[in-house]
Amino acid sequence: MILIKNAKILTPKGIVEGNLKVEGKKISEIGGKAVKSDVVIDGSRKAVIPGFFNTHTHAAMTLFRSYADDMQLHEWLEKKIWPLEAKLDDKAVYWGTKLACVEMLKSGTVFFNDMYFFPEAIARAAEECGIRACVSAAFFDFFNPDLLELNLKNAVKSLREIEKYDVLRAIGPHAVYTVSLDGLRRAAEIAEEMDIFMHFHLAETEKEVLDFKKQHGKLIVQALDEIGFLSKRLIAAHSVWLEDAEIEILAKKGVSVAHCPASNMKLCVGKAIRYEAMKRAGVNFTLATDGAASNNNLDMLEEMKFAALLQKFHHSNPTLLKAEEVFEAATLNGAKAFGIKSGVIKEGYEADIVLVDLAKPYMQPEHSLIANLVYAASSGCVDTVIVKGEVVVEGGVFRSEEEELKIIEKANEVAKRLTGSA
Amino acid sequence: MILIKNAKILTPKGIVEGNLKVEGKKISEIGGKAVKSDVVIDGSRKAVIPGFFNTHTHAAMTLFRSYADDMQLHEWLEKKIWPLEAKLDDKAVYWGTKLACVEMLKSGTVFFNDMYFFPEAIARAAEECGIRACVSAAFFDFFNPDLLELNLKNAVKSLREIEKYDVLRAIGPHAVYTVSLDGLRRAAEIAEEMDIFMHFHLAETEKEVLDFKKQHGKLIVQALDEIGFLSKRLIAAHSVWLEDAEIEILAKKGVSVAHCPASNMKLCVGKAIRYEAMKRAGVNFTLATDGAASNNNLDMLEEMKFAALLQKFHHSNPTLLKAEEVFEAATLNGAKAFGIKSGVIKEGYEADIVLVDLAKPYMQPEHSLIANLVYAASSGCVDTVIVKGEVVVEGGVFRSEEEELKIIEKANEVAKRLTGSA
Repeated sequence: MILIKNAKILTPKGIVEGNLKVEGKKISEIGGKAVKSDVVIDGSRKAVIPGFFNTHTHAAMTLFRSYADDMQLHEWLEKKIWPLEAKLDDKAVYWGTKLACVEMLKSGTVFFNDMYFFPEAIARAAEECGIRACVSAAFFDFFNPDLLELNLKNAVKSLREIEKYDVLRAIGPHAVYTVSLDGLRRAAEIAEEMDIFMHFHLAETEKEVLDFKKQHGKLIVQALDEIGFLSKRLIAAHSVWLEDAEIEILAKKGVSVAHCPASNMKLCVGKAIRYEAMKRAGVNFTLATDGAASNNNLDMLEEMKFAALLQKFHHSNPTLLKAEEVFEAATLNGAKAFGIKSGVIKEGYEADIVLVDLAKPYMQPEHSLIANLVYAASSGCVDTVIVKGEVVVEGGVFRSEEEELKIIEKANEVAKRLTGSA
Repeated sequence: MILIKNAKILTPKGIVEGNLKVEGKKISEIGGKAVKSDVVIDGSRKAVIPGFFNTHTHAAMTLFRSYADDMQLHEWLEKKIWPLEAKLDDKAVYWGTKLACVEMLKSGTVFFNDMYFFPEAIARAAEECGIRACVSAAFFDFFNPDLLELNLKNAVKSLREIEKYDVLRAIGPHAVYTVSLDGLRRAAEIAEEMDIFMHFHLAETEKEVLDFKKQHGKLIVQALDEIGFLSKRLIAAHSVWLEDAEIEILAKKGVSVAHCPASNMKLCVGKAIRYEAMKRAGVNFTLATDGAASNNNLDMLEEMKFAALLQKFHHSNPTLLKAEEVFEAATLNGAKAFGIKSGVIKEGYEADIVLVDLAKPYMQPEHSLIANLVYAASSGCVDTVIVKGEVVVEGGVFRSEEEELKIIEKANEVAKRLTGSA
């Protein structure tokens, strides 16, 4: 049992000052008496908040963090990113993912939804770090039926391989400009058969939307609906360039969108996601960092601020995406997308908990804990992180400083090998 | 003497690995031998970078951090901010400014340009915290000649009062919508006579620009030029809604602009500053956080990312405001605006130095230190801060934890008194 003593506990009903108990993997009591416990955490001057759910990333791209920035998209991909990705192996992805897991855990993230090469390495890294994850078997077919058969076979093989790990699984057809409609339909069938999630890039740029319409004579989401691609299993990253009709279909089908504001801004996707329309329609709106190559961090505290400010600025309305709404997107809505009873601090819910140090100047005064978290906090305030009832970060440190340094060194070695600077 | 040993030193010519010496208030040697020193700082796994210059803020508004967000501007000002400001006194401003100074120093800021009520309290707080500052005597006249005389007299009195403190001084005519052209002209004369700076809000919103044009039949900057308001003494905050002709005048007159991207986004000013035009014209482009009520922090690392991403996104060009450019805006250009030989790590320059912990996952790998600082870093990486040759932050702590907690408690007391929740 874990006892957190005398903390300010952020519950759905407001802040409760007192104790919180964790038994097994669950929050068992809020506001009860202090009792003898295996682990006792001093919660004074600390807030207990739910951990963050990062619903779209490419974790191992931490290896390419700040390797190439401030470039035109195609030049960046063709000259910088793709040549490095061609050299990736499972060892590289393993250490890149570990670096990402440490970064995420230390900034309060308890779950990430990943899409990258070498799923087995990703699943292994996540499990070893004690973070929740959904690992995708990504695939492309580039509109080639033979390639589709081959890559689907490989994807299914990967999905079977990672079944032994303590992670959720998804099939990851990349996007409509890299996977045929037939490929998407087959992916949905596999997801249904294997009872797993689907992870997909949707309507990130105007070009994607215009090209699709030109070729198919319809909107992307309408086409996806017709082939049975849309369901609660689907997490649609970006979802920027959508019409009202498409947003309504997403809501009706229970699709979750993963909004990536920093990446959208850095890569100049041209407009901001239509949060207000999604809220009105009832879409499950979640938050994500995308990969570190286009962000360049995996910090959900920072991402919340980017999300809120981008909505306000782009749609010229300071009341859009309020602090409470973006906080819910980053926590509860992410948990819902993956059917995890988590994302709030509530008895009976999973113990995915972050203790935030309130004795940081930017967390003061305490007019509003949520507004401070969204608009003022930075990852340095994350003191303790508990995932599934296990303490993984304590005093801001992931397990031990030696463990952190080892992961940093290994990731560096790999990054140098890939860039040829070793 | 201070010796920083075995660090990665970010100089204008690239990274030098070795030692750095500080003698008195200056950087005396880079890359020399380690010698006996009063203070020795281990620089291994750390980078030495110049400290940040925050060129426009209202420091004591930390008291109102997260007190009211997500509201329409006028409702926010009239119902929330102004009623609290009416209750301010010098004690409140003193503790609010101290909280701000601790926050700024701990996130690597070595200088702030402030405009708020009770300048004496601001100057005292800044001096006691060991941070560089330019303190304004702000004034309004609301187009009333009697009020102008009264408020100018008070401003000059305040400026004389704070002469004894170790701070730079500025006269702060608020903006064209609160101060008459006659008031602005008089402010410029006073600045000239007293040999001090001028601190001013320029073209923050479209309304300001349209109203001015309607009333005066000309562009704001043209009118300011005609009355002799523009010179190297002037720091013009925001400067968003400017025409090419105005930008050229600002460049010609040596005016510095203080760009506040997070505030501009949060308050929905409608567009992004025209960085490319300013760069072309040769305007001294600096970076700032604005006050904590509209940000809600004073974190220049975060501000750099907002600046770079906002330019790229709003102007649809990922190559705009590159990492190196925004870093220079946040350091060297800010120092230049105030005539301080600082903002770079170079022999003979002022010892305003930040040691950054590279053993943070988000600072790894080390493909580019500057891109990591701009796009990935958060304030938790700031380990040591030296201002004018004095160590003020060590191991991430401002002086001592007791000192930090005392300031937090006092600021909280004051904030509660103002909001009536004490």
